[in-house]
Amino acid sequence: MGAFQDYYPEHLAHCYGCGRLNEHGYRIATVWDGDESVTRFTPESFHTAVPGFVYGGLLASLIDCHSTGTAAAAMYRSENREMDSSPSFRFVTGTLLVRYLKPTSLGPELLIRGHVREIKGRKVTVESTVLVEDVPTVRGEVVAIQMPENFGS
Amino acid sequence: MGAFQDYYPEHLAHCYGCGRLNEHGYRIATVWDGDESVTRFTPESFHTAVPGFVYGGLLASLIDCHSTGTAAAAMYRSENREMDSSPSFRFVTGTLLVRYLKPTSLGPELLIRGHVREIKGRKVTVESTVLVEDVPTVRGEVVAIQMPENFGS
Repeated sequence: MGAFQDYYPEHLAHCYGCGRLNEHGYRIATVWDGDESVTRFTPESFHTAVPGFVYGGLLASLIDCHSTGTAAAAMYRSENREMDSSPSFRFVTGTLLVRYLKPTSLGPELLIRGHVREIKGRKVTVESTVLVEDVPTVRGEVVAIQMPENFGS
Repeated sequence: MGAFQDYYPEHLAHCYGCGRLNEHGYRIATVWDGDESVTRFTPESFHTAVPGFVYGGLLASLIDCHSTGTAAAAMYRSENREMDSSPSFRFVTGTLLVRYLKPTSLGPELLIRGHVREIKGRKVTVESTVLVEDVPTVRGEVVAIQMPENFGS
């Protein structure tokens, strides 16, 4: 099985954060690790806030796309469906909350871990944490909303 | 008077979102418009979410840097000081909350308007709204925290 984002329908795979077809973007790839979802990402040297630390907007972006991907994957799981089955699920962000606990060192690979807190109708709430060298530096919460089927097509 | 970001000390002017010295970044420029702060920014064609709409992570980033810049400028104002006076103020983000009200069309210039809700000790709370063609599409709230004087130097 590939990353969650490998299953996004082609017309919905252009997102700057997670679209596999956006050659300028981050193209994050998220997979299950048991009941948690995991993304690994190494920022570029210019993704800086204060020198030596990762730009907060990038961290918010990673949490955002990691969480909407997790929401989609969780919805398939809740229906006992494979991610390549139809209809396909794709989520947009309703609310994004990011708490910066401490500066995130720029250089090492970042780990983003997601946990599905609630699935309720078309809404999925995901808690995601950014870790650098095993230390949590940012905590996020995303309320993701299932996209209307005809959106963007 | 230039943009708020023109007054960031050189070693703190490398942020991907608002550092005038980051040639890869957004280099946003924020100014006062009466009691509100204003940033204008035109996304690139690849800053897309679903085709036709602006990437949510970019919108979060713009709100973030617009708000920390506004926090610094508000702190100077509260002390009746010019932005080129010392000591210089620079803020980091404690908490970032972003509510996506509707999709933001990709193409037109975006307007970000900020309003200072509270200054309390080293914390400034800023509410910022993204508008496209006069329609508010995203609302953000940032709790910005004054950086320790020696941070990043």
